[in-house]
Amino acid sequence: MNTSITGRAIAGGILSLSTVNIRDFAEEKRKGRVDDYPYGGGAGMVMQAEPVYRAICAVKAERPAARVIYLDPQGKVFDQEMARELSREEDLIFLCGHYEGIDERVLEEAVTDHVSIGDYVLTGGELPAMVMMDTIARLVPGVLNNEDSSVLESFEDHLLEYPQYTRPEVWNGKAVPEILLSGHHANVEAWRRQQSIRRTLERRPDLLEKAELTKKDRQYLEELPEEKLANPEDIC
Amino acid sequence: MNTSITGRAIAGGILSLSTVNIRDFAEEKRKGRVDDYPYGGGAGMVMQAEPVYRAICAVKAERPAARVIYLDPQGKVFDQEMARELSREEDLIFLCGHYEGIDERVLEEAVTDHVSIGDYVLTGGELPAMVMMDTIARLVPGVLNNEDSSVLESFEDHLLEYPQYTRPEVWNGKAVPEILLSGHHANVEAWRRQQSIRRTLERRPDLLEKAELTKKDRQYLEELPEEKLANPEDIC
Repeated sequence: MNTSITGRAIAGGILSLSTVNIRDFAEEKRKGRVDDYPYGGGAGMVMQAEPVYRAICAVKAERPAARVIYLDPQGKVFDQEMARELSREEDLIFLCGHYEGIDERVLEEAVTDHVSIGDYVLTGGELPAMVMMDTIARLVPGVLNNEDSSVLESFEDHLLEYPQYTRPEVWNGKAVPEILLSGHHANVEAWRRQQSIRRTLERRPDLLEKAELTKKDRQYLEELPEEKLANPEDIC
Repeated sequence: MNTSITGRAIAGGILSLSTVNIRDFAEEKRKGRVDDYPYGGGAGMVMQAEPVYRAICAVKAERPAARVIYLDPQGKVFDQEMARELSREEDLIFLCGHYEGIDERVLEEAVTDHVSIGDYVLTGGELPAMVMMDTIARLVPGVLNNEDSSVLESFEDHLLEYPQYTRPEVWNGKAVPEILLSGHHANVEAWRRQQSIRRTLERRPDLLEKAELTKKDRQYLEELPEEKLANPEDIC
């Protein structure tokens, strides 16, 4: 978190991040151990309610209004829209589980949001927390400068990004699409829009349903299948 | 990657990980710079084809059969099934972009898989690469020991996990569900199965379509709405 865009935001005082080790809230006699066997049996260990509860309370003592996000494969799937909503919060607590998870009772008591970053199994909540923090941080006013800002467009309109090219004009026998060298701004924009729509159709048709398409976009989309047949090399 | 389960696997020689800095493959005169303005205009910078190409070739010289995975918001969405497939590969290269992305021509030339970890925008490919590496590593034989192994079940059967509880029996006035203390293995399993189905229905109904349900599961599912109405407190 201390590198690149989030690093700059932390150094600039726009964001702050602190970490709390749940082991520091273990019962005295358990010497930093916070896991125990699951009731009902089964492989793996479960994190105990009390140390988790104490750790959250310790943070909430200073940040009473903070939402508590549990990184949870069972949670609502994180997306750009949720990131936008969370970026308006002043404080967020990310609760990172390990092993087979955390005792359900403290989750019921203390967690406000169960969030999953995707349908896959990770070792703990730390990586997903970092993923969420990076995405959310980028939406906090002042974190991105003008040079970065256009990337925000991704997913906001439910269309994939168009392809990008930079120098040289010809690389490895491949030329940059001529239209990008034309200097004709409106044509470039129209081409990029079409590329976005086409990619979304080819790679993520599920997103297209949510996209706000103009009449012109829809016309392009309707005419696309023919073009694909006529130009197979271009589709790969 | 050097902590927890992946750290243990690396220390044990089951996995190895090395990183390559694309900047080391910049043109001499550009002194480590690998980005340039996008053709056709627009905010942000684009990574050049040649340094990316050279970096990939340098790795492939030793690992010619390695698949090249580009961490790409436009890619196929990563899930446990894809992780399972990738875990059978001997070598994987994770290509991490930054800024507005990488020149399309080198992606066409060198990338075998475009993968997105979810519908959100991150600063670069590093966090998603770590997420993929963690998930995939856990599926490599020998990486998880017996204590860890049950977590694999998540998502493999397209059902969410059941709730977990550990000591004490009563915490903060909340008791562990009695059935888990019964010692009756079959009843515990049946209860957990029902909890999984119920959670999946309530939180991720989209997953249920893919789940393999027994006749008994389906019966439970059909009877569920009534139970929910009768027991509203239990649903939250």
